[in-house]
Amino acid sequence: MSTGFFGDIKKIEYEGPESTNPLAYRFYNPDEIVAGKRLEDHLRFAVAYWHSFAWPGGDPFGGQTFERPWFGETMENARLKADVAFEMFSLLGAPFYCFHDADVRPEASTFAESAARLDEIADYFAEKQKKTGIKLLWGTANLFSNRRFMSGAATNPDPDVFAYAAATVKKCIDVTKRLKGENYVLWGGREGYETLLNTDLKREQEQAGRFLSLVVDYKHRIGFKGTILIEPKPQEPTKHQYDYDVATVYGFLKKFGLENEVKVNIEQGHAILAGHSFEHELALANALGIFGSIDMNRNDYQSGWDTDQFPNNVPEMALAYYQVLQGGGFKTGGTNFDAKLRRQSLDPQDLLIAHIGGMDCCARGLKAAARMIEDKALSGPLEERYAGWKSAEGKAMLAGKRTLEEIAERVVKKKIEPQPKSGRQELLENIVNRYV
Amino acid sequence: MSTGFFGDIKKIEYEGPESTNPLAYRFYNPDEIVAGKRLEDHLRFAVAYWHSFAWPGGDPFGGQTFERPWFGETMENARLKADVAFEMFSLLGAPFYCFHDADVRPEASTFAESAARLDEIADYFAEKQKKTGIKLLWGTANLFSNRRFMSGAATNPDPDVFAYAAATVKKCIDVTKRLKGENYVLWGGREGYETLLNTDLKREQEQAGRFLSLVVDYKHRIGFKGTILIEPKPQEPTKHQYDYDVATVYGFLKKFGLENEVKVNIEQGHAILAGHSFEHELALANALGIFGSIDMNRNDYQSGWDTDQFPNNVPEMALAYYQVLQGGGFKTGGTNFDAKLRRQSLDPQDLLIAHIGGMDCCARGLKAAARMIEDKALSGPLEERYAGWKSAEGKAMLAGKRTLEEIAERVVKKKIEPQPKSGRQELLENIVNRYV
Amino acid sequence: MSTGFFGDIKKIEYEGPESTNPLAYRFYNPDEIVAGKRLEDHLRFAVAYWHSFAWPGGDPFGGQTFERPWFGETMENARLKADVAFEMFSLLGAPFYCFHDADVRPEASTFAESAARLDEIADYFAEKQKKTGIKLLWGTANLFSNRRFMSGAATNPDPDVFAYAAATVKKCIDVTKRLKGENYVLWGGREGYETLLNTDLKREQEQAGRFLSLVVDYKHRIGFKGTILIEPKPQEPTKHQYDYDVATVYGFLKKFGLENEVKVNIEQGHAILAGHSFEHELALANALGIFGSIDMNRNDYQSGWDTDQFPNNVPEMALAYYQVLQGGGFKTGGTNFDAKLRRQSLDPQDLLIAHIGGMDCCARGLKAAARMIEDKALSGPLEERYAGWKSAEGKAMLAGKRTLEEIAERVVKKKIEPQPKSGRQELLENIVNRYV
Amino acid sequence: MSTGFFGDIKKIEYEGPESTNPLAYRFYNPDEIVAGKRLEDHLRFAVAYWHSFAWPGGDPFGGQTFERPWFGETMENARLKADVAFEMFSLLGAPFYCFHDADVRPEASTFAESAARLDEIADYFAEKQKKTGIKLLWGTANLFSNRRFMSGAATNPDPDVFAYAAATVKKCIDVTKRLKGENYVLWGGREGYETLLNTDLKREQEQAGRFLSLVVDYKHRIGFKGTILIEPKPQEPTKHQYDYDVATVYGFLKKFGLENEVKVNIEQGHAILAGHSFEHELALANALGIFGSIDMNRNDYQSGWDTDQFPNNVPEMALAYYQVLQGGGFKTGGTNFDAKLRRQSLDPQDLLIAHIGGMDCCARGLKAAARMIEDKALSGPLEERYAGWKSAEGKAMLAGKRTLEEIAERVVKKKIEPQPKSGRQELLENIVNRYV
Repeated sequence: MSTGFFGDIKKIEYEGPESTNPLAYRFYNPDEIVAGKRLEDHLRFAVAYWHSFAWPGGDPFGGQTFERPWFGETMENARLKADVAFEMFSLLGAPFYCFHDADVRPEASTFAESAARLDEIADYFAEKQKKTGIKLLWGTANLFSNRRFMSGAATNPDPDVFAYAAATVKKCIDVTKRLKGENYVLWGGREGYETLLNTDLKREQEQAGRFLSLVVDYKHRIGFKGTILIEPKPQEPTKHQYDYDVATVYGFLKKFGLENEVKVNIEQGHAILAGHSFEHELALANALGIFGSIDMNRNDYQSGWDTDQFPNNVPEMALAYYQVLQGGGFKTGGTNFDAKLRRQSLDPQDLLIAHIGGMDCCARGLKAAARMIEDKALSGPLEERYAGWKSAEGKAMLAGKRTLEEIAERVVKKKIEPQPKSGRQELLENIVNRYV
Repeated sequence: MSTGFFGDIKKIEYEGPESTNPLAYRFYNPDEIVAGKRLEDHLRFAVAYWHSFAWPGGDPFGGQTFERPWFGETMENARLKADVAFEMFSLLGAPFYCFHDADVRPEASTFAESAARLDEIADYFAEKQKKTGIKLLWGTANLFSNRRFMSGAATNPDPDVFAYAAATVKKCIDVTKRLKGENYVLWGGREGYETLLNTDLKREQEQAGRFLSLVVDYKHRIGFKGTILIEPKPQEPTKHQYDYDVATVYGFLKKFGLENEVKVNIEQGHAILAGHSFEHELALANALGIFGSIDMNRNDYQSGWDTDQFPNNVPEMALAYYQVLQGGGFKTGGTNFDAKLRRQSLDPQDLLIAHIGGMDCCARGLKAAARMIEDKALSGPLEERYAGWKSAEGKAMLAGKRTLEEIAERVVKKKIEPQPKSGRQELLENIVNRYV
Repeated sequence: MSTGFFGDIKKIEYEGPESTNPLAYRFYNPDEIVAGKRLEDHLRFAVAYWHSFAWPGGDPFGGQTFERPWFGETMENARLKADVAFEMFSLLGAPFYCFHDADVRPEASTFAESAARLDEIADYFAEKQKKTGIKLLWGTANLFSNRRFMSGAATNPDPDVFAYAAATVKKCIDVTKRLKGENYVLWGGREGYETLLNTDLKREQEQAGRFLSLVVDYKHRIGFKGTILIEPKPQEPTKHQYDYDVATVYGFLKKFGLENEVKVNIEQGHAILAGHSFEHELALANALGIFGSIDMNRNDYQSGWDTDQFPNNVPEMALAYYQVLQGGGFKTGGTNFDAKLRRQSLDPQDLLIAHIGGMDCCARGLKAAARMIEDKALSGPLEERYAGWKSAEGKAMLAGKRTLEEIAERVVKKKIEPQPKSGRQELLENIVNRYV
Repeated sequence: MSTGFFGDIKKIEYEGPESTNPLAYRFYNPDEIVAGKRLEDHLRFAVAYWHSFAWPGGDPFGGQTFERPWFGETMENARLKADVAFEMFSLLGAPFYCFHDADVRPEASTFAESAARLDEIADYFAEKQKKTGIKLLWGTANLFSNRRFMSGAATNPDPDVFAYAAATVKKCIDVTKRLKGENYVLWGGREGYETLLNTDLKREQEQAGRFLSLVVDYKHRIGFKGTILIEPKPQEPTKHQYDYDVATVYGFLKKFGLENEVKVNIEQGHAILAGHSFEHELALANALGIFGSIDMNRNDYQSGWDTDQFPNNVPEMALAYYQVLQGGGFKTGGTNFDAKLRRQSLDPQDLLIAHIGGMDCCARGLKAAARMIEDKALSGPLEERYAGWKSAEGKAMLAGKRTLEEIAERVVKKKIEPQPKSGRQELLENIVNRYV
């Protein structure tokens, strides 16, 4: 039975590129076969519970703008929220969702009671998952909103907060496992600092390393098969967040010997805040072997904070999915819309429309990327560019079979004077524009 | 015999804080004992050859503004340049200098001839070092200005460029060793990319790793005792430089097993471009055990490129030297002024005045930092803040003697509900202001 | 009778630079005569009601951290808040305060009732002002927090919101006049847009111009003698705010013929967000004749949002007050601390300590600036630099007494080939460092 | 007779969207009628002489990469450069070009001789214009590269530099008029400051105002019918440029009474550096009545300097041309490619390919914009959003027929409590995506 929140809107259908129906897909046809796979299985869309159902529309200068019938800290409201959420997942045909503990149940006055509430809601979700076929892409714990975490969770100066955070994560992994979540995400929103003046950086990194090791050990002990994912972000709310970007996370994992245990969940907006393009972070994660999943959104290029907007620039998304596909596509990961409505978008329809637009852009981008790969549009020229390294000497140098002296001697003897060749950037950009 | 370039200016002397003589030190008294060590031995100032003697004053929108008698691509000019440079080092009482091959000798038409010219100048330097007592802080190779390096040096798609770069670095290490340089620096100005469309990120990182391994092996083989330093920078001239920041370099070193062989040379301006504070990069390098040396300058906070200005904000420098001292101070490293005159500062005096101001600010900053350490002004509150981790349970958790389950169980049993404590940031900021 | 909120802390006294008492001034001695005026009369400090008493410590990723006995939407709480506020003003010896309507009274369900509550609190304030001698620097209306303003106040697409905003401002000016406020401020936090796609830029600027004209007309009609101030900010919460920076506000005022009626209240953090230095905005406002007042805080240079921190960098503040003093100092304006505690600074003492540090830095900066002016440390070299314009020809050209042809003819005839002179930036920076 | 520089490449033809020929247009069909006008007449493409023919490929860390047969400071080379330039204009079918004096002739040792050389080249251009039908979109003077301008041109502390700059601009306007240029541009690359410490902001703005007035007077006196355009840029090479952005230029024009005489030439990259979107600057210029022309390029969103890349993101360009068309399209202005090859793009073909890609993206963007306008895709919803202002009361308020008191009284009497309506941003974004 419908909650009525979305009125009489029916399941969103694919109508093709010419459709002008705002409540239809123009590019996302889940069953379309692209590069040998259903589009749905490529994209693995997930809806983020927090932005769409828990966020009231506030910003640092204003409060709630949305008026949702489920707002209010009761379990009844929590169930109504779940009803509407699963209704929306179904309307959209989104195969996955993601949540934090704090999104789905009101916090209680004790840890134990909060945990009990989470279990109760998890049961409710389990039923709904069964009924709808919708799956959990990942679960996670909110270790940043409550004031107890104001100075960090794992990296808090108070070991009791570390313990509290550990207990919370254990609970959330348990629930994620029960709901057959395919991943478990850690975003360290408060794992960083406001000022170095009151921060012992080295100690806090040790705490973070220990925490992650505890999580990995636990996962194995209980047989959770999902992937543990870290989500990098450079800052906000903190001045500096320890999981700054993909490269930083990689170094951290190496330091604690976890590089084969943990992967990254990369968000477009976080990449931008860190001074990178989204495709850079994706390419780097592939290169380092730690690519896991993506949080799809876009940041406003003129705003210095995380705007978490629904994506809408297809050429940019084609480049992102190009990297995803180059790395072999998602395994346990997927495309989570970590995107929120603009706070002026008050209507229930806006929630659907935003997701429809985002899903369509992703589909369009991925299809373009798949065609580029099929045509070797970029990989052909790339192979040619690096062809010199296939020479015997190139291979020997790279394999470590030459010393610096030997290489230097050869340069002098052979009078090597390399001549630069065009990088052809504009040509390659034009080629991409054939596909988008 | 003086070149006359600086007119009749005499050696810059320390005159104390009240001096208004623009050609005197107000805070830098080399022989002053601070925290048990001569100030000169703490700060280990070095002058950068390139900015002060090789840079013509150009920017992307205009050409040469400086008119120096040694400009022009002859060996005679190179010697005159060296004469003036050592004159300036002596006038300033700067104990060290740093150079790239390209700063000190005109490039020839072949590698061999360029190398011969470098040797010739190195002999000239060796004499001057002997005569003046001035030492080489570090040498380095310019692998970014010549068009042959436009697509990278170690990470070039053409293995011949890799080879040419390797030969160049070998030569520069040889010269650095001969001149008793205390470090050798690698700054990968072109080791990055303009566009991912023509870039094989993974391959290029392998090339970079191989290159650095070659350098480290060579260093050991020839018995060079100096430290190998990588200088991180996020971008500029490239869109993305592989040695983005300290955290990125650390991950890279770990990947190639070089974290005990190579340290970092951290530049204030590069830290800023990467979205960090200078003190962050210093603190992180200390925490990761890879701190080596610093390039002291400042970036304009309102400009998005590397402005390489002489430092002038004492409170900021106190925080930087606080981190340096907390890490035990410089070993082989030092304070290199990687700072250039503004291009409108045409007069020979400006060169001296800029360095005097920079050295004075550093001295003032370091002295403030030393007093903060002596007084435990920050470390006292810090210890107090993390005191909880000295508890048995805190230690056990951090040491890995508790599982996630055990920690969680304790939270429930003990009904742990952590109460946040003030971070006292403003108090600590006020305390710092007592020292600067 | 004290509320007890600050415990037994007594009035903050000046103890001089050597004091290590965290609850004493080291530089702010209100009665000290600087450049012929009491320091208190120079600086005209004001405390911002909102940050210190109404803000709960939330950020986009977390909720309330502060626990204040006056939190809660009742008039009783509003009075307790006022009690503590005036207690703090008195403890600090701050001569002024500033407030929005929304800071001081709970919003009611109708406009009329909200207005009545404001009147009630205004009466309460009036009494306290009389008793303590503390004055109102400026009043203002909060036209951005309530959801009715989500799409703008004066620039809302709905004329009813324009009307509502107008009624609110009228009420707030009335109250400001009654409390003898010396200025009235308009900050257009929602006067801007999230997307041009739904925005009629031209129309909205017309609305803003009309709104401001209404305010100015009203001010004259009721005989309010205070200054009307606009506070520029480039963005946040909006993607683009119409009062972007000082230059933008000037153009806007000129467009609507209000440049002699309205001045600017310049905030350090807003200057930084707009890509300017604080001193730039101050210098520009002076040059354009629209300087009014300042909101003193600092923004974190590595964060892309408004961090509103208490100022702590004395050299920067010296440059800011140098501009203020160069323009003749404050008339009706003053130094309002539009700065908030870090959300981890939970203790009542932190409120005092933050203000003490800020006031001390301001005092130290202003005193340095005054000495620079007295010594003509910067103005002397400046006069020399532009001396050529005192020549007959220079004056004639600038006065419009030469045509382009005449000037060109003279260049050719006199064979003018100008020779650049050193800009001596480093020397001037060193000179400033003698004062800070 | 061809110079042979471009080999045997023939005139670039339109081949339609399916073409994979890198040397053909896929969207730019000059004769295609869009919204009642030929595409060529809409877009009015111009090639920038400087980037394509005078720039050697240098950046702050490296020198020349391009090897062009015309490089070298002789008049013979200048003519060869002109030959190749007009060859390229013809191959592309670009109807316009733009140049600075410094791009087209080597500087001589006196002003008079430099001017004579400019005349000589102008004659050469005149012939070529006649022969090819190619026209001059705008001329301009390079008042930033030579060291004489290092401290500004019009705003120089030395009145002789002001005079020299005036003479130069007079000469360039004369030549522009002779070549029937449709506009004359002033970009004040050095009209700004490096440090406020040596800058008299107010005086320099007076100088700039006088300079512009001289130019406008001269234009009228000689009967030059073209438009005088100012090109805003916030900074680079200076720390702060006086013509920061459109809003700043507007205020400046108003201050000197020139707002009806001068318009703006808006560059995408400069908009981005100023913290704006390109479409913002266009919309604002339209709203203020000062829109003139555009410099089309793109800036890298992750780089903090002016990257001047060829545009390649069609959705962004559609939004830009939407604003251009909304303002009635170009009058004397046009689309100048102020874009340069990446310095690794060494081949002559790259020059063509870059322009082809850029022109195609512009054409594609403009066609999408025209269809959006035709369909009222955005203007329909916009009209609806502001419909309330068509009410009698709305009109009266905006027309100034209500006082603040009257408005306030009505709010109270009518118990106005405005209810917010959805801003529908995501819907509008999805609608745009139907067109791009």
